[in-house]
Amino acid sequence: MWRDLLPVGRDKETRGYRRHAWTGADADCRAWFRDQAESRGLTYELDRNGNQWAWLGDPEAGGAVVTGSHLDSVPDGGAFDGPLGVVSSFAALDELRRRGAEFAKPFAITNFGDEEGARFGLACVGSRLTGGHLTREAAFRLTDADGVTLPQAMERAGYDPEAIGPDPERLARIDAFIELHVEQGRALDLSGDAVGIASSIWPHGRWRFDFSGEANHAGTTRLVDRRDPMLPYAETVLAARREARLADTVATFGKISVEPNGVNAIPSLVRGWLDSRAAGQDALDRTVTAIEKAAREYADAHGIDVTLTRESFTPVVEFDHALRDELSRILGLEAGLDVPVLGTGAGHDAGILASSIPTAMLFVRNPTGVSHSPAESAAEDDCLAGVRALADVLEGLACK
Amino acid sequence: MWRDLLPVGRDKETRGYRRHAWTGADADCRAWFRDQAESRGLTYELDRNGNQWAWLGDPEAGGAVVTGSHLDSVPDGGAFDGPLGVVSSFAALDELRRRGAEFAKPFAITNFGDEEGARFGLACVGSRLTGGHLTREAAFRLTDADGVTLPQAMERAGYDPEAIGPDPERLARIDAFIELHVEQGRALDLSGDAVGIASSIWPHGRWRFDFSGEANHAGTTRLVDRRDPMLPYAETVLAARREARLADTVATFGKISVEPNGVNAIPSLVRGWLDSRAAGQDALDRTVTAIEKAAREYADAHGIDVTLTRESFTPVVEFDHALRDELSRILGLEAGLDVPVLGTGAGHDAGILASSIPTAMLFVRNPTGVSHSPAESAAEDDCLAGVRALADVLEGLACK
Repeated sequence: MWRDLLPVGRDKETRGYRRHAWTGADADCRAWFRDQAESRGLTYELDRNGNQWAWLGDPEAGGAVVTGSHLDSVPDGGAFDGPLGVVSSFAALDELRRRGAEFAKPFAITNFGDEEGARFGLACVGSRLTGGHLTREAAFRLTDADGVTLPQAMERAGYDPEAIGPDPERLARIDAFIELHVEQGRALDLSGDAVGIASSIWPHGRWRFDFSGEANHAGTTRLVDRRDPMLPYAETVLAARREARLADTVATFGKISVEPNGVNAIPSLVRGWLDSRAAGQDALDRTVTAIEKAAREYADAHGIDVTLTRESFTPVVEFDHALRDELSRILGLEAGLDVPVLGTGAGHDAGILASSIPTAMLFVRNPTGVSHSPAESAAEDDCLAGVRALADVLEGLACK
Repeated sequence: MWRDLLPVGRDKETRGYRRHAWTGADADCRAWFRDQAESRGLTYELDRNGNQWAWLGDPEAGGAVVTGSHLDSVPDGGAFDGPLGVVSSFAALDELRRRGAEFAKPFAITNFGDEEGARFGLACVGSRLTGGHLTREAAFRLTDADGVTLPQAMERAGYDPEAIGPDPERLARIDAFIELHVEQGRALDLSGDAVGIASSIWPHGRWRFDFSGEANHAGTTRLVDRRDPMLPYAETVLAARREARLADTVATFGKISVEPNGVNAIPSLVRGWLDSRAAGQDALDRTVTAIEKAAREYADAHGIDVTLTRESFTPVVEFDHALRDELSRILGLEAGLDVPVLGTGAGHDAGILASSIPTAMLFVRNPTGVSHSPAESAAEDDCLAGVRALADVLEGLACK
């Protein structure tokens, strides 16, 4: 099952994955999901927002237990971020069937669309639409780097963009959603555990800084006559690191776009994207406010205009305490151990759905902590431990 | 004539020109050149390196006087850089015919291919090949951002790349080459002159800095675990400005490429291009050496590898003194004035050809000094003064 998925959307040169929403690689991942569902006798369903579902039992009956994750990737992402959760969901069902477990509730496995936001700049589009956190109008305005809008991309991939919108009836039929994910840090590695439970998702957001100067010839324009936006950009990158260190948060400029981007031209525009996250809202606000203040001062000093746009923001997400305690109990009983509970700086569909339905997450150990990179890894034994833990949880929640 | 050329390759949104070598816009510019040549009864010729020639008289006779410039542009370039020289060449011929001047020597107007190097990263490809400053092997290795090689691009545009190579016989038949160009600085504006003569072209080069770190998740990777190449890049950008100010040179980071360039991914690679120029070789060496040293120190401090590649370099070019003095005499006699003589930080085909044949340049005033930008401008009166000056020079050099 894992082997079939591995080559899809993998770049020959970087060995990283480029499974961006509504591309050919995404379509191949979706075809794989449908095959896995149908080969297990599950009822396949595509919802109005392009999320895939594989049902066992009657979806309309209510009280369903659902597990899953996403199959899309960041540019040159790793093999585990997303797919491990979907593959483990199917494997956990196989494990439960081996155990002879009988489901007492409807059960489904999901693949949420466009979790990473690599193409349209907004993460968790599939779950945001379903949960009503992204309006249809805002979704229709999303545009990729080539000027293709989300509805155009959906249409080209053979989906009807007119159908998108909130889906509260669907969510009302779900009692619990569990997402298994490779850890994107080293907490489990440091604590020596194969599997952990999520406590919360840090508040996080994306801010776009547009530094506008004046394009000019790099050879003939005197330094004093320049309005070069690359300079305040560079100063702001360094300010972001400094402020994050001071506030014990994280702040990253990982994406940039420059116009005209010619070797012998002073740029007219440098656009940089800030990703910042913190354990608490106050620390995050302090960090971003300080970076913004620094950017404005640097821009002023160079005669540059700067505009700041908050492209997305997700407040802190506390996962459902009762469900978390139940997972701890199930897994602790099974393993005779304390199961570590940890926060995370990464956003997830589970975080979006947590405001609508009881939601929990399981993490699988990542020995290097590396994520969003072809070097991302997880040991086979840990992945199998993850499948057993997910099967235990599903058995405890959904079976007789 | 000018009006026909204006819309070619102009971006609707930026209003800047995107006339890159061997693209459709380039082909349209070339068709315009051929039309202009043939409508004046000139003999059209395309040389082995894709440069265009329009001949009056026998090209084989020797002792020719040639004028011209280029029609390609930087990304989002202005209307004047290049085209003003070609348009003024045709207009000067029209002016000489109005005056009833008779040519005593063969005369040609040229459009040199790929002067800006916007597509393949190396400037003055057409004149470098002709002058023997770029080997056929090195030219065949030039590749654009989409992985298309120069020979592939030439072939797709209907030209035979097999023919490219040095063309000393052609150059041996030329006694003088004059290039008229819009000034790319404010020297003439500050001195109050419409037209000036070039003394020299500053030594200049392009260096690529590759900062290699480790891609990772921007939300979950602790600051201490990061190897983020954006940080030493930013520090190096600021060092470049500082060192240029100290050495009274110019140094610019105007082009950048980031991998994977995702908002929530720490980059694995930040590639920045430095353009640096100076009035003298020593100052340029001092500047680039200091920037390199700073880059290595910053990279070390962040656990980043940095490699430096000199992608191109052109030493100082002193234009032919005898020809320059003759131009001063012709233009001074005509105008009863001293004609200003000025150096320039910009590279030109005339600079490449200066090592093979006597070469001179005329500059036309640029009131804002802005170049390589849609805001580049020249007043109509100054352009007409440029045409008259070029006609005077051609009459003095080539007519009875």
